[in-house]
Amino acid sequence: MPTAPCEKMAPMGRLLTETIEVRGHIIDSLILPKILDKLIDAGADYEMLDVDIGKTNKDPSSARIAVTADDGILDVLLDDLRVHGANRVEHVDAVLVEADADGVFPAGFHSTTNLETEVLVDGAWCRVTNPEMDCGLVVDDDGRAHTIPMHRVRAGDRIVVGRDGVRVQTPARPEGAGTFEFMNSEISSEKPKGLLIRQVAERMRAARETGGRVLLVTGPAVVHTGAGPDLAALVEAGWIDCLFTGNGFATHDLESNVLGTSLGVSLAEGTPTEGGHSNHLRVINEVRRWGSIEAAVEGGYITGGVMYECVRRPIPFVLGGSIRDDGPLPDVVTDVVAAADAMRDNISGVEVTLMLASTLHGIATGNILPAGVETFCVDINHAVLTKLADRGSHQALGIVTDVGLFTRDLCAALA
Amino acid sequence: MPTAPCEKMAPMGRLLTETIEVRGHIIDSLILPKILDKLIDAGADYEMLDVDIGKTNKDPSSARIAVTADDGILDVLLDDLRVHGANRVEHVDAVLVEADADGVFPAGFHSTTNLETEVLVDGAWCRVTNPEMDCGLVVDDDGRAHTIPMHRVRAGDRIVVGRDGVRVQTPARPEGAGTFEFMNSEISSEKPKGLLIRQVAERMRAARETGGRVLLVTGPAVVHTGAGPDLAALVEAGWIDCLFTGNGFATHDLESNVLGTSLGVSLAEGTPTEGGHSNHLRVINEVRRWGSIEAAVEGGYITGGVMYECVRRPIPFVLGGSIRDDGPLPDVVTDVVAAADAMRDNISGVEVTLMLASTLHGIATGNILPAGVETFCVDINHAVLTKLADRGSHQALGIVTDVGLFTRDLCAALA
Amino acid sequence: MPTAPCEKMAPMGRLLTETIEVRGHIIDSLILPKILDKLIDAGADYEMLDVDIGKTNKDPSSARIAVTADDGILDVLLDDLRVHGANRVEHVDAVLVEADADGVFPAGFHSTTNLETEVLVDGAWCRVTNPEMDCGLVVDDDGRAHTIPMHRVRAGDRIVVGRDGVRVQTPARPEGAGTFEFMNSEISSEKPKGLLIRQVAERMRAARETGGRVLLVTGPAVVHTGAGPDLAALVEAGWIDCLFTGNGFATHDLESNVLGTSLGVSLAEGTPTEGGHSNHLRVINEVRRWGSIEAAVEGGYITGGVMYECVRRPIPFVLGGSIRDDGPLPDVVTDVVAAADAMRDNISGVEVTLMLASTLHGIATGNILPAGVETFCVDINHAVLTKLADRGSHQALGIVTDVGLFTRDLCAALA
Amino acid sequence: MPTAPCEKMAPMGRLLTETIEVRGHIIDSLILPKILDKLIDAGADYEMLDVDIGKTNKDPSSARIAVTADDGILDVLLDDLRVHGANRVEHVDAVLVEADADGVFPAGFHSTTNLETEVLVDGAWCRVTNPEMDCGLVVDDDGRAHTIPMHRVRAGDRIVVGRDGVRVQTPARPEGAGTFEFMNSEISSEKPKGLLIRQVAERMRAARETGGRVLLVTGPAVVHTGAGPDLAALVEAGWIDCLFTGNGFATHDLESNVLGTSLGVSLAEGTPTEGGHSNHLRVINEVRRWGSIEAAVEGGYITGGVMYECVRRPIPFVLGGSIRDDGPLPDVVTDVVAAADAMRDNISGVEVTLMLASTLHGIATGNILPAGVETFCVDINHAVLTKLADRGSHQALGIVTDVGLFTRDLCAALA
Repeated sequence: MPTAPCEKMAPMGRLLTETIEVRGHIIDSLILPKILDKLIDAGADYEMLDVDIGKTNKDPSSARIAVTADDGILDVLLDDLRVHGANRVEHVDAVLVEADADGVFPAGFHSTTNLETEVLVDGAWCRVTNPEMDCGLVVDDDGRAHTIPMHRVRAGDRIVVGRDGVRVQTPARPEGAGTFEFMNSEISSEKPKGLLIRQVAERMRAARETGGRVLLVTGPAVVHTGAGPDLAALVEAGWIDCLFTGNGFATHDLESNVLGTSLGVSLAEGTPTEGGHSNHLRVINEVRRWGSIEAAVEGGYITGGVMYECVRRPIPFVLGGSIRDDGPLPDVVTDVVAAADAMRDNISGVEVTLMLASTLHGIATGNILPAGVETFCVDINHAVLTKLADRGSHQALGIVTDVGLFTRDLCAALA
Repeated sequence: MPTAPCEKMAPMGRLLTETIEVRGHIIDSLILPKILDKLIDAGADYEMLDVDIGKTNKDPSSARIAVTADDGILDVLLDDLRVHGANRVEHVDAVLVEADADGVFPAGFHSTTNLETEVLVDGAWCRVTNPEMDCGLVVDDDGRAHTIPMHRVRAGDRIVVGRDGVRVQTPARPEGAGTFEFMNSEISSEKPKGLLIRQVAERMRAARETGGRVLLVTGPAVVHTGAGPDLAALVEAGWIDCLFTGNGFATHDLESNVLGTSLGVSLAEGTPTEGGHSNHLRVINEVRRWGSIEAAVEGGYITGGVMYECVRRPIPFVLGGSIRDDGPLPDVVTDVVAAADAMRDNISGVEVTLMLASTLHGIATGNILPAGVETFCVDINHAVLTKLADRGSHQALGIVTDVGLFTRDLCAALA
Repeated sequence: MPTAPCEKMAPMGRLLTETIEVRGHIIDSLILPKILDKLIDAGADYEMLDVDIGKTNKDPSSARIAVTADDGILDVLLDDLRVHGANRVEHVDAVLVEADADGVFPAGFHSTTNLETEVLVDGAWCRVTNPEMDCGLVVDDDGRAHTIPMHRVRAGDRIVVGRDGVRVQTPARPEGAGTFEFMNSEISSEKPKGLLIRQVAERMRAARETGGRVLLVTGPAVVHTGAGPDLAALVEAGWIDCLFTGNGFATHDLESNVLGTSLGVSLAEGTPTEGGHSNHLRVINEVRRWGSIEAAVEGGYITGGVMYECVRRPIPFVLGGSIRDDGPLPDVVTDVVAAADAMRDNISGVEVTLMLASTLHGIATGNILPAGVETFCVDINHAVLTKLADRGSHQALGIVTDVGLFTRDLCAALA
Repeated sequence: MPTAPCEKMAPMGRLLTETIEVRGHIIDSLILPKILDKLIDAGADYEMLDVDIGKTNKDPSSARIAVTADDGILDVLLDDLRVHGANRVEHVDAVLVEADADGVFPAGFHSTTNLETEVLVDGAWCRVTNPEMDCGLVVDDDGRAHTIPMHRVRAGDRIVVGRDGVRVQTPARPEGAGTFEFMNSEISSEKPKGLLIRQVAERMRAARETGGRVLLVTGPAVVHTGAGPDLAALVEAGWIDCLFTGNGFATHDLESNVLGTSLGVSLAEGTPTEGGHSNHLRVINEVRRWGSIEAAVEGGYITGGVMYECVRRPIPFVLGGSIRDDGPLPDVVTDVVAAADAMRDNISGVEVTLMLASTLHGIATGNILPAGVETFCVDINHAVLTKLADRGSHQALGIVTDVGLFTRDLCAALA
């Protein structure tokens, strides 16, 4: 019988004091206040040992804080503060424990953030190659560290346990981020949109110039609203380096190419086509007959659209399956764990992510991206953007607008 | 090379006339007007050959209508009208074509609605056992017909092709449906909620008394809003016969039992727990160690909550995987096609479905339920309910309210 | 002491039967079914005496229905059905009662719909000149009838009481209304927007060609989203014949002209201007100094924008006051009853109404428009459109999209 | 011809440096970071002259900052920072200018925040009696200062102009505010509601115990959702000291008492009543006949409900008119400027404000309340709460839930 290592609530005990330090733009990036906020909320006492606030806004600041709290909560509290880049001053090597079963971490495993992370192994700080939140940390025999999602752990893997020997860094504030930063806390529909769109275009241009990749995550509303051709043009022109989406988007993109409809609604007339409610099924059925989207493109069945341009350019795409899928298309990765892994295999080098009207795939992508990736989420529904932010994509900028009109204008801004 | 049987648009040709008939409460259930509406929108001409309107509201009505339209669209138009229960007067046997490949329908396959359906085989009408929308119809060697989703078809299956020999029936209007029918077109948040909740409770009672099953589809917000114990009480008291949900709900339900939090927020205090952001991961990890939720219940790791009550009673549950899942729990069906099939295996006899704050699993369930199942969708976000209705769950009643408060009150109304 | 003529609930009594008739496109416009629906919901029995359904879709239909119901409800029920164009077969003169106090109708006053209405006075049907919902009907000494809002009635006015002698007509279905009719029941954000915008433009063109007036009702979000110049261009080019709005829109329109900001946010940069939070107050203050918007335009203080173009062209505008107004501007009609009357004075001849992101003024305008006016409501928030529809603007087409992008594209489509 | 004192943009000139100071819990209340944020966004340079961070969380902190910026923006920038409690170190008397016309401020008038404010007159700091945002500051002949809305200024009033001699204080963080503070930044529907409701009840109890008044602002949805009796019970039990609402709420409250319906929908059955669409008009008409709500209560026409309890207890109420009002009721203040003034006359001593499903009156109330008043806004629509926050009610806590269920539970929690 396995033991249950997560106790309901640790018994309160004696008071302990430990020192943390934090450095960087900790005042104007709100880091220090958030840390003090957490300390107060947790009922901890603190003493500022040393505060060095940059004399001008070019200089970084630093602070050392002695935190006093109950034995039962000090550890989790300090662990929690790591999200804000606050690290313990005294460093000891990370504790490594071998997993004793496939797909299960050792009890007390270190749970990761999506920040840049280092692990202290044999006295040396070792950079984690692929920051991802809600994972474990595995240290190879040669001392290299990387994140590992729970399902991939294998018996014998050396997993970091507890809080010792792990430190993180918050991302620097991007240059000229004024507007976006402001928007971030607002996610309002009442903003000048033309301007915003030009700024998104600039970021995409900047990424391309420095060799960064642009990831597109999209839902079917882009096709329904008539912006499919604009998106296809973006892919054709080389603005998109990778696509994550689902069966729905790909199907309606193909349906619009083969039959001129999206969910049976004529994109030229805006009216439902007679018999159109089964159009998407017929197109899925034929692509299944061909065996793959690529085969259907090469065979001439598909002659345009986003998926066509992805095949032609080519750029990699992952169609992640969902329980509501019709068909599905033969390219859909129906195992969701395998699909998330396929996405992980494709995010290296991504610097900008564009999420268009996609709740499910948007959240899934946000789950695996490192904190430094600039992410623009576009949706007409304010609640969707709140949900994305709640699920951890804190670095995302939410833009409340019509995704069809947005895409068309972005396409024009990049032309 | 396969042929592409869905042509972009059939060429317009000569005018054809065919007669359809429709019977039942076609006036007061809006069926006849909707049919005429479709005909006008399609540019068809019609002549009312015979209209027999029930003299009183106890009597059914019937109408025969000669429809004249272009050769190119008459067939699809008449096919479309079948959704409204309008059938061709002249019946000929359904055309059966053998599938020539696994997972692919013959070209021109008959695409199903979720209405009661019959197929004319060798001159006899044969009832389809499991109506489901967006499927094909397969006729066994012994003449029995059933729906089949695309991925399940096997080479050699005899599939109905075209529109001949298939007829459907719209569901009767339920007794005393006044309120709900009215609400259906409104989905408004500005309605007296106490009353609505009592009526949902009455429907659940009525289903139980007649041996009908009640299906629960739920999302994690029920746990976040503190209504988990109420839902668990409903399961314990035998009000729920089957549960469809995902990794998120099950995880937070277990987390709330083991650690008293939901996504790290204390359900007793409403405040984030220090270190709580990884609580759900730790619980998933332990349940993976046990091997299944059932094993974790039996081993004493899980001592209460909705999943616990499901195991104890027992009632069947399907945890359908999603690409955004952490972990996932060992019980999650990670292949989405297999998950949908597992859901199909559990809907026989369901008469009432309760969907609580669940977009993904709600739509997936709506996809496979027959039209006659009464479905109540509760969500605080109006747009979610619109999306559910758009995706085909037309028979669903949307209730815009706080799912936590709703569940607590429903529990009280059923106590 | 006045008597209270609205009793809580009339006592149930003997059954009465009365005959109603309805004619027109009563099948394909869903009128007959809705009537039967109401009868059933009310627990009334009915008998179809005579149904003449048009043989083709060019022919109107008619039906005569004998309705049997309780003495206590038959009258209100038949009154209710008048909304759907169902009139009593037996016509007697309308009963006229003199109002005995200013601003108060006689008990039992006939409450109007917004449909075309006729009153039977001395055996002759007399057309009501200005249909408006929720008003009374006054008959002049010369036998002419018009609607009158409650606050305008004067002691001695002859007011129609009860249900006799009043008949109404539902508007005909506009030619080629297919798309819009479809949308009406959907109000979905997932529709091709470019198409919709072109269709709105066509309707505005059609109205202009036939001498119909176009009414604009707008809220401040149009300015915030940067579409003010587009709207000003529409006014300048003569597409708008009348403007209803409030202090907020006018203020931000002027602020954007004088200071380049909207609520202090720079429209060129998208960023808040230092000190900008009081910009709108400063502009209001200066316009108050000038005495009116017109004076400020003529004096050269205002040199562009929507209000400027309204003054220049000129077209009439009504700035209806609201309890949340800052200032307000000197042109604002601060008495809301007077403001609604000013709006009533300006709706004659209006055929198309465009409502842009305006809940308050949109509902107020919907309250006073006759049923036949085509109304397009644009808002990014689905709930606002539902609220407009709930409040009686049934003839309105809701378009869920970004009002800034919509306005810019409408401007382009009309250029 | 008046001069136009708001120039489009001041010309850029020489750099100036001025020192500001800020003190209090400036780190853990995020004040200092926000100030530095503003400085950076404005392109200003700063130097920290003196930072004294409290050694423990019991000690206040203080900072002196030398700000260097362009001549053209330094003044407005420092003015802007006053919102965050940052005051200039060098104090000179406020500049007073006499208004030269009724209803118009002198050019360059000081525009107020809703924070505690003091004015330096003749070398002495004088406390402003009634902080209100977006007003001017008038200094009486006896040296006392108060805010004045623009429309109330009279020629000869001495108005503060510019930024000299005015300082403000941010409100202290309330004790035990942990939960609410956290929620404030979230406004999420996915929170345990029972807990929140108990906390709102506690605040109301605390206010009552210390002699603070509780202000209720409500919209008609409370009646539509069936929670009218609960709200009436709160008034009867003395939990509410003042009511701000509109014609709609009062009408439907009265309608529900007289006829048992709300907008014609039976509150007992949830179904529309035949003839019910004019119920509210009939009730308004009768109350107009009585002359006032109070007269109708005393005459026995109104026998229960919220307005009845307000008259009986009695507590003051303001019915602010709106351009969409039917009738209106005789008690409605139809002039919106007079209505806002009536509200101003009733907010003295208010410590807790409860806003229930009221956008218009909620924003109007938020406009006139001082920053220190705790405000709870309840609405099912997330966007409404965002709008309230955007309009300046920053101290408000938004609760996304069903207002009917909330009110019933709040009533139970206070029983």
